[in-house]
Amino acid sequence: MARSPSGESLLTRVVRILDAFGPDTPVLTVSEISHRAALPAATTARLVREMTGHGLLARDERRRVRIGTRMWELAERASPVLGLRQAALQYMGDLQAVVGHSTQLGVLDGGEVLFVERLSAPDAVVNITRIAGRLPLHASSAGLVLLAHGSAEVRERIARGPLPALTPHTIADERALRAELAEVRRRGFAFCPGHIHPDATGIAVPVRQNGEVVAALGLVVPNDDAAWPLHQPLLLTGRALSRALSAAPVFSG
Amino acid sequence: MARSPSGESLLTRVVRILDAFGPDTPVLTVSEISHRAALPAATTARLVREMTGHGLLARDERRRVRIGTRMWELAERASPVLGLRQAALQYMGDLQAVVGHSTQLGVLDGGEVLFVERLSAPDAVVNITRIAGRLPLHASSAGLVLLAHGSAEVRERIARGPLPALTPHTIADERALRAELAEVRRRGFAFCPGHIHPDATGIAVPVRQNGEVVAALGLVVPNDDAAWPLHQPLLLTGRALSRALSAAPVFSG
Repeated sequence: MARSPSGESLLTRVVRILDAFGPDTPVLTVSEISHRAALPAATTARLVREMTGHGLLARDERRRVRIGTRMWELAERASPVLGLRQAALQYMGDLQAVVGHSTQLGVLDGGEVLFVERLSAPDAVVNITRIAGRLPLHASSAGLVLLAHGSAEVRERIARGPLPALTPHTIADERALRAELAEVRRRGFAFCPGHIHPDATGIAVPVRQNGEVVAALGLVVPNDDAAWPLHQPLLLTGRALSRALSAAPVFSG
Repeated sequence: MARSPSGESLLTRVVRILDAFGPDTPVLTVSEISHRAALPAATTARLVREMTGHGLLARDERRRVRIGTRMWELAERASPVLGLRQAALQYMGDLQAVVGHSTQLGVLDGGEVLFVERLSAPDAVVNITRIAGRLPLHASSAGLVLLAHGSAEVRERIARGPLPALTPHTIADERALRAELAEVRRRGFAFCPGHIHPDATGIAVPVRQNGEVVAALGLVVPNDDAAWPLHQPLLLTGRALSRALSAAPVFSG
């Protein structure tokens, strides 16, 4: 593998450039990419040129750079989450039509929740999750569900901390976290009023494929007395989606 | 840029490996990748190893390879189609709830239609489109809409052919294609009974952002007498989505 003078492989540099883009920075200049990827300007310009040639990046009329349609196509057409997303979308649409607000689907990835789908009403309460965005496992309702049903290894690693608090209501203490995970397993859902934002309540349930928890389905609703009863429609939707996933082995590829 | 003895850059080989995966081949062995990407076995094994290290690829318990969650995340979180998809999904859900069958959203990319979203009922009529799948412009209803409203340059290039026929009803003749494109512009939608599959009718309308056509919204329904009237709900949905897109400049990044 070709290495730069710093000993870094070309692929490492390509990934660093892709990593410079995000939901808040979908369009960047070459010098912004160079800065965010911590790569020399000349190296960045050369790699951006080659990546653009392959469609991994694209340039707009002002020569600013963004992720290319080809990159999206390569990732999406054999997407590891495509089957799950497609099965879930119909059930999420039903939930959205009945309950409103925001509904989202997260999977466990690299010690965090990675959100693979989200539907949101225009007037929904504040919700910081995004498609392909991440949240810490201990702070989010989807994360608590995934942690409660995940491997002991991940659970122990997260429980040992650190457990940063996003609000005064975030579970930021090992003993409280362990008690909460037991409670999530017992009652079948996570309920997190104000854990991520004081105005919002997250509720999440497990999505199972042939018994194994493969994702967490969640709602983000206003943090008020109307939130608690919504665990029922959410539980029903989680069970319906789990049944659909278990009937057709779409997620195992 | 590092080049192999054949003079091919590393990035070219990486893209060839990613390109080996598709909707029908989401999981491959290293030797299948080597074959499909036309790369030597040792080169393939080495690149797969490095790409797996970066999360661009992932291995399952049987050491078979698939696109990695990290690759999906890098492409999706700053996706060039994210804003369009998110705006469209709610309107597509409404259409799906009212009309049923399949509804899909395509953009013009590289002289073809690239489908960026699709919702489908479990009992929907045969529909060969897939998310991140492609169809020829002249054969599909979405393609005719994009061609009718696209640049003269693309239109002339496609019209000159070849125009391969997928069924006896595909428009496979330059004069017929030009007449049809004029008709699509005049009446505001494309109507394609049996053009792609004898059992299915495609209908598509333009999606506009501030007057410019940025996508085609389509239905795939059974090829029978009930198909024609569905252009009305589709036209209404296309107008509603265009209005939403033009109010908020989500697609321009």
